[in-house]
Amino acid sequence: MADGRGYIIPVGGAEEKIGDITILRRFASLCDTAGRIAIIPTASEVSDTGARYETVFQGLGVTEARSLPIYTRADAELPELIAILDQSDGIFLTGGNQLRLSTMIGGTSMAKALRRRSAEGAHIAGTSAGAAFLCEHMIAFGREGASPRAKIVTLAPGLGLTNRVIIDQHFRQRDRLGRLLTALAYNPFAIGIGLDENTAAFIGPDNSLEVVGGGALTIVDTSELEFSSMARVRKNDPVCLIGLKVHILDHGSTFNLTTRVAAPAPAIARRA
Amino acid sequence: MADGRGYIIPVGGAEEKIGDITILRRFASLCDTAGRIAIIPTASEVSDTGARYETVFQGLGVTEARSLPIYTRADAELPELIAILDQSDGIFLTGGNQLRLSTMIGGTSMAKALRRRSAEGAHIAGTSAGAAFLCEHMIAFGREGASPRAKIVTLAPGLGLTNRVIIDQHFRQRDRLGRLLTALAYNPFAIGIGLDENTAAFIGPDNSLEVVGGGALTIVDTSELEFSSMARVRKNDPVCLIGLKVHILDHGSTFNLTTRVAAPAPAIARRA
Repeated sequence: MADGRGYIIPVGGAEEKIGDITILRRFASLCDTAGRIAIIPTASEVSDTGARYETVFQGLGVTEARSLPIYTRADAELPELIAILDQSDGIFLTGGNQLRLSTMIGGTSMAKALRRRSAEGAHIAGTSAGAAFLCEHMIAFGREGASPRAKIVTLAPGLGLTNRVIIDQHFRQRDRLGRLLTALAYNPFAIGIGLDENTAAFIGPDNSLEVVGGGALTIVDTSELEFSSMARVRKNDPVCLIGLKVHILDHGSTFNLTTRVAAPAPAIARRA
Repeated sequence: MADGRGYIIPVGGAEEKIGDITILRRFASLCDTAGRIAIIPTASEVSDTGARYETVFQGLGVTEARSLPIYTRADAELPELIAILDQSDGIFLTGGNQLRLSTMIGGTSMAKALRRRSAEGAHIAGTSAGAAFLCEHMIAFGREGASPRAKIVTLAPGLGLTNRVIIDQHFRQRDRLGRLLTALAYNPFAIGIGLDENTAAFIGPDNSLEVVGGGALTIVDTSELEFSSMARVRKNDPVCLIGLKVHILDHGSTFNLTTRVAAPAPAIARRA
């Protein structure tokens, strides 16, 4: 168990479930292979989503992997399900639709328990919709395209494990730079994290993140932004943003969310 | 100066500036009439907005009322303006467009200083756009109408003095119950506060609010919400929300944001 807050682990969706299983294996080992993992399948409308992850995590050797059947707001108040969270070293939120997570879990005892368990040291991962839901400001839905345009993204309150980042997933596969930039253009205080599929950010208790997986992680840092035209643009107009800093990071690269310093993976650093 | 955090005071817009001046007088007396008030006119595109409030607050007898000319992100980094905030007992954000506030001040040293001053005990009030900007989740813009419909409201990150409430203003005058309900329907964890014009919520350090002014304050409490259909509705469809609690409060009424208990003004309580 980590000292202090646990890891927060957004995954860009479509992570390997056979073969190397790099991301889920790393998550399971972080939770201790003797540990327990609770799965929250609420985002998914497919009935066997939770069971599939139970099988994958059991295959990775964890002591217990259990899917919690939360499909209504009443389910998210059940003390017996919260008791399972209390005994879990890791919690994994599946993909699907992030609005299913926010409308069924938002404001319930389960949401409070998730925040409490994160603060107590449990590691909380989410893939795709599960990744979008982890933070205070959640991209609920939006349109595709590389350039930021007014009104192409809808933000909603998320679970709130951190407000330092805004996450978008399936990033390269669905051409989402534009909607992440639009989300940041409203109020340039958060750091944008765009996650390709099969790519995760392991955000440690010290707010330093490490990239794990086969794709890229795009960091958008607005700390030196000089100008955003979001206050004056009209629907579908492009948004003017001056002074963005962007890093494209691969497996093993790191980024510190406090100091905003990026570093390549050690092996590549040695080659340079 | 209050013990702990200062008051957070969203005002619904169009507050009296002559005559009784109930809300601004109450704000000035909270800041101590021997105190200093800083005015942030950034939301407004009208050049004399700051000067008008300087005159009103000086007329109420405060020692100093000074408008800070913040109209670019570079202005929001100026140490001399932050030094004025540090000496202020109260800070007042004018109306205009809340996206001007979030795009010019979000992520800057000024935003950090405002959060720090609030935590140190300074009282921070905002009217109209200034009210919308105060909280973590800000209604950026939206459409009118009494019923909640998908996509009629756009949320963006705000200043972040609290995440317990989502604020809407000019509430009755612009028929905004629908967009406030839509904002809450995404994730029913926050408490909705709809402020009529010339009506304010004085939210104390103990998270109890008192209504001040001539209109109504509408509280929407989602703590017992049984169902939100937001995850499955399409654009302009009505949103199904089951189990909302609503209170309409007038001058002197109170609502505790922690216990979620409302109480009428003492005079009315005696009559009952």
